[in-house]
Amino acid sequence: MKSGFFITVEGGEGAGKSSAIQTMIEVAAQRGFEIISTREPGGIPIAEQIRGIVLDRANTAMDARTEALLYAAARRQHLAEKVIPALEAGKVVICDRFIDSSLAYQGHARGLGINEVFSINRFAVGDWMPQLTIFMDVLPEVGLARIEADLSREVNRLDLESLVFHRKVREGYLLVAERFPDRIVRIDAGQELEAVLQKITEVLNQKLPGRV
Amino acid sequence: MKSGFFITVEGGEGAGKSSAIQTMIEVAAQRGFEIISTREPGGIPIAEQIRGIVLDRANTAMDARTEALLYAAARRQHLAEKVIPALEAGKVVICDRFIDSSLAYQGHARGLGINEVFSINRFAVGDWMPQLTIFMDVLPEVGLARIEADLSREVNRLDLESLVFHRKVREGYLLVAERFPDRIVRIDAGQELEAVLQKITEVLNQKLPGRV
Repeated sequence: MKSGFFITVEGGEGAGKSSAIQTMIEVAAQRGFEIISTREPGGIPIAEQIRGIVLDRANTAMDARTEALLYAAARRQHLAEKVIPALEAGKVVICDRFIDSSLAYQGHARGLGINEVFSINRFAVGDWMPQLTIFMDVLPEVGLARIEADLSREVNRLDLESLVFHRKVREGYLLVAERFPDRIVRIDAGQELEAVLQKITEVLNQKLPGRV
Repeated sequence: MKSGFFITVEGGEGAGKSSAIQTMIEVAAQRGFEIISTREPGGIPIAEQIRGIVLDRANTAMDARTEALLYAAARRQHLAEKVIPALEAGKVVICDRFIDSSLAYQGHARGLGINEVFSINRFAVGDWMPQLTIFMDVLPEVGLARIEADLSREVNRLDLESLVFHRKVREGYLLVAERFPDRIVRIDAGQELEAVLQKITEVLNQKLPGRV
């Protein structure tokens, strides 16, 4: 049986996830892997419908736990329809945000509890946890300044949250990274871009399995 | 602080839940309680939208875990918007099906695992577990025969599941009842209706709190 390699990329706003993913795609391609780069809901109709409920501005009565369960449901469907088939076909899957985003944002920053949010996401994910997670770590002040400087980038609701909130998110990520040291590699994303991408290249070359 | 009393009614098809609920409403009213009788999604728009995704026949790719998470999400929203406010106002809430339906149907009969389905529902429910659950227990053969004899009743998808499935559901309920003996009261719903309702009246009179 072939089996692929499941990588997720995490981090706060302006951490440079997009550049990191571009580099990862190149490294994996050089190593001869077929690659799928995705993010939730990933064009999966059921997952899109679920996200539609979460993002509907009319749904002001949305409870925080309902929201967390809906994100977990959309995650499961994207995983089942897109990620698992690709992994079973032996591909490298690179997913922009995954379980750790829920743990950092909803579990820690929103106060639902990392353990509690982990329990529903563990149900969603089953045995399909990422084999490698690149955590792009940057001080919120630095990340948010990058976003403001980048006029081509659409500013979304989360970008506009307060600095206090973004500090809680980073704190959440650091707690999660401490909890899963074998899986999560913290990258100092506050460095010069070239140094960051060099580091990611090294990590990926070390962690990617050899081709069978 | 006032606090109400949260009752759920569970059981397979044709167990007589509707008659049981009618009797419970009368008993609670005689005891001077204000009563809300509800069932999920209970007219809560967000919960209705979530159930709409689950029940959409076009969604043939729906994964079993996605479905379980969506049911839990709809449950949370109905609880947050309708059940909790009523309990906080000191009312008796009688809910037709709740967490144990997910445990029996999805956890046991569909094979997702009672513990696993409990974990996501515990997240959904938090500390708002029912204080009393009436489990209307009837042999599937008897329940299904009752439904077939009742031409006024609309037959739904679950009614048409195989007898094997309904036996698994009952088995699931029995396991759940064993696990929560303080909360779940098993009623032999295969008896004559009069005897069943008499028993429910006794249980309710015993379990309902005194008025403050």
